[in-house]
Amino acid sequence: MTKTSHSIKDIIVTPIAVGDPPLLNCVGVHAPFALRIILEVITEGGVTGISEIPGNKETEEAILRIKPELIGLDVFQPNHILRTVASTFPDQSDGENRGGAPWDQRIVVHIFSALEVACLDIMGKELNCRVSDLLGGTMREQVPFAAYLFYKFKGAGGQFGYELDSNATGWDKARQAEATSTSGIIDQAVAMCEAFGYKSIKLKGGFFPPDKEVEDTLAIHKAFDGTMPLRYDPNAVWSLETGIKWAKVFKGKLEYLEDPVRGQKNMALLKKEVNIPLATNMCTTSFKDLPGSLQVHSEDIILSDHHFWGGLRSTMELYKICKTFGRGFSMHSNSHLGISMAGMVHIGAALPVFDHEFDTHYPWQNEDVIVGGKLKVEEGCVTLPTGPGLGVEIDRIQLQKLHQNYLDCGLTRRDDEAEMQKLDPNWKIVDTRY
Amino acid sequence: MTKTSHSIKDIIVTPIAVGDPPLLNCVGVHAPFALRIILEVITEGGVTGISEIPGNKETEEAILRIKPELIGLDVFQPNHILRTVASTFPDQSDGENRGGAPWDQRIVVHIFSALEVACLDIMGKELNCRVSDLLGGTMREQVPFAAYLFYKFKGAGGQFGYELDSNATGWDKARQAEATSTSGIIDQAVAMCEAFGYKSIKLKGGFFPPDKEVEDTLAIHKAFDGTMPLRYDPNAVWSLETGIKWAKVFKGKLEYLEDPVRGQKNMALLKKEVNIPLATNMCTTSFKDLPGSLQVHSEDIILSDHHFWGGLRSTMELYKICKTFGRGFSMHSNSHLGISMAGMVHIGAALPVFDHEFDTHYPWQNEDVIVGGKLKVEEGCVTLPTGPGLGVEIDRIQLQKLHQNYLDCGLTRRDDEAEMQKLDPNWKIVDTRY
Repeated sequence: MTKTSHSIKDIIVTPIAVGDPPLLNCVGVHAPFALRIILEVITEGGVTGISEIPGNKETEEAILRIKPELIGLDVFQPNHILRTVASTFPDQSDGENRGGAPWDQRIVVHIFSALEVACLDIMGKELNCRVSDLLGGTMREQVPFAAYLFYKFKGAGGQFGYELDSNATGWDKARQAEATSTSGIIDQAVAMCEAFGYKSIKLKGGFFPPDKEVEDTLAIHKAFDGTMPLRYDPNAVWSLETGIKWAKVFKGKLEYLEDPVRGQKNMALLKKEVNIPLATNMCTTSFKDLPGSLQVHSEDIILSDHHFWGGLRSTMELYKICKTFGRGFSMHSNSHLGISMAGMVHIGAALPVFDHEFDTHYPWQNEDVIVGGKLKVEEGCVTLPTGPGLGVEIDRIQLQKLHQNYLDCGLTRRDDEAEMQKLDPNWKIVDTRY
Repeated sequence: MTKTSHSIKDIIVTPIAVGDPPLLNCVGVHAPFALRIILEVITEGGVTGISEIPGNKETEEAILRIKPELIGLDVFQPNHILRTVASTFPDQSDGENRGGAPWDQRIVVHIFSALEVACLDIMGKELNCRVSDLLGGTMREQVPFAAYLFYKFKGAGGQFGYELDSNATGWDKARQAEATSTSGIIDQAVAMCEAFGYKSIKLKGGFFPPDKEVEDTLAIHKAFDGTMPLRYDPNAVWSLETGIKWAKVFKGKLEYLEDPVRGQKNMALLKKEVNIPLATNMCTTSFKDLPGSLQVHSEDIILSDHHFWGGLRSTMELYKICKTFGRGFSMHSNSHLGISMAGMVHIGAALPVFDHEFDTHYPWQNEDVIVGGKLKVEEGCVTLPTGPGLGVEIDRIQLQKLHQNYLDCGLTRRDDEAEMQKLDPNWKIVDTRY
């Protein structure tokens, strides 16, 4: 391939760690630091594109391993780059399994998402347009997100772990507070909605027994006068029997129930018993899962995550498939910073029809890696950045600080089970807990 | 919307007529002129994007009617343009029927395809990249097409109608020759493949009774030593019983059988009886048809036509759906010139995996509307133009000449039935002829 100003000259991979509160989920508790990888793709023309993906040692090593193959490729030809990535990991490019955890453990889609977003950022900068324009056009300037509630232990994570900052007020206070009781989770919901103006709420469950979590969800429903669209997600740790039992209780009260049970078959069986909207980011998680999903109608709403579906363009393709086959579309989230947020906002801005507020962990992180600090969430919405490309840039001092966090914290991959075992040595990940 | 250099300043619509031989099909015979509409979209910045769509008076009038709504829209925001078009024709934007003829009679998708291709042409020119780059990247420089055989009466169409040019040689001679007998269609196949180096052949049928057409198809198979991939298309005028009977005869001898019967249900029933690859451009022709197609598995290969599916990006979305659900992808054709050809070539260049040579009527037209004359077909392939955008430009003298043809010929819409009735007053279009 002839070298041009659009050829990749270098790729810089920086693992970082950002403070993350002790949020609870079906596999355990978040460690004090969430890991991310920041990618910088630099062209011969001197333009840098950036992206952010979930951090773990294997992904970082895989990117570094493939890097020599990528040097010289044209950032305007993302499908060529995809082909190169896929051919370097032939065993993983198609049949790779996402694993049983709430987060996706595939390598290839992560790498491609990292590269694709950085390429789109460069294209936008070269073309003086926004990434949303490259995804079909900018349909809106405000992209709505949902409040994302978590059961949690006290503390805000980071270097102070479970300690509290007693001077904190408002959301900063609620972000650190313990929330395991009904009143605790309602306080969290109220504080989060007051701070960010969210117009819908999701509760991450799967940690406590169903009766308690369902009671809490209904209490949130009541606390907001039954008018706030509400989602609840036990992350597939319920048996089919448990799922059917509690889904019936939720009927008419949820915007949707997310992954109550594990696998498309169980989702479809639950749906046959209880007519309630079901969403997923665990049962249908790749293009190869879609035929099965449609055949048995296991879900009504597919929650994409551009880090897991292979990028922003793939996410738009998933959207088109959802619209073609009568499914709703929204986006899933793990702990993330402003670069991933920008990617989600560009998708949200480009969707011809916006179905459901996107999930985001964003308020749970109290610092960022982008210039100007965290993107504002106001009235539940993030405003599409105006700059070319993604419209966000790396704050070098923050990058260095968060990379030092990574080196200091000693974590190399997400392991909520090990973190939970520090508190409860008998804790184990199980496929079906209840 | 703020006016920028990318705002639409003007749209010029020019109906044209180009000589078309008396090709036979299930609804009759091609008139001496095929109608096309040439669209020119001009931005405030003075850049012109072009496109070509099937011509008829209704489409032309509809574009002119909607034109005031389009002035000022941003060519970099095609989804906004789509929304404007769709909201102007609410009754037709979703539920519109393609009609029973081999060609699609919807208005909205035609208009959107015309606008989208012109916008992409402008984007490519503004960004100094090819349209294929805007569709995900250029995966190949040579795009393969299939020889497209037709039963035909003598003559080359145009102003001389059924008369012959006795000095013609090679393909020019074969293009004018009668081809209704077995030897006639084989001569046509040999001449076309010799002239253009095609590596696969399609025979358009549905005119003569099945026994004759099947015999001819098998004769072509034999004439090329059984090694040439072969397709046959009776355009859905067979009953299910007829379809099953003859599909059995074709088993193992066709690359695919195209639209043997009418409707997804009949296609699926035929498929259950005879295990032969089926393709369609009549039974599954829009995104809303796809769920039904997949549910009953009515086809193995979907033949897009970017004029009917709403543009080049939609065609790429259809491709992704085909790949996701295990279907093959190729492209359908009606009589067309070099601008439509360029659009097809850009799609062919952008497809990550190329399944089946595209159909094209292109050799049947002996003149073009683009600078430099017809794009070359060599070794069965068209080379992707190198220029920015579509890479083809309008030849103003040719445009004027072909527009004069349009004014002179008096045709305002395609009507193969009326043309056939000049020869056989008893001829009638029927849904199921055999």
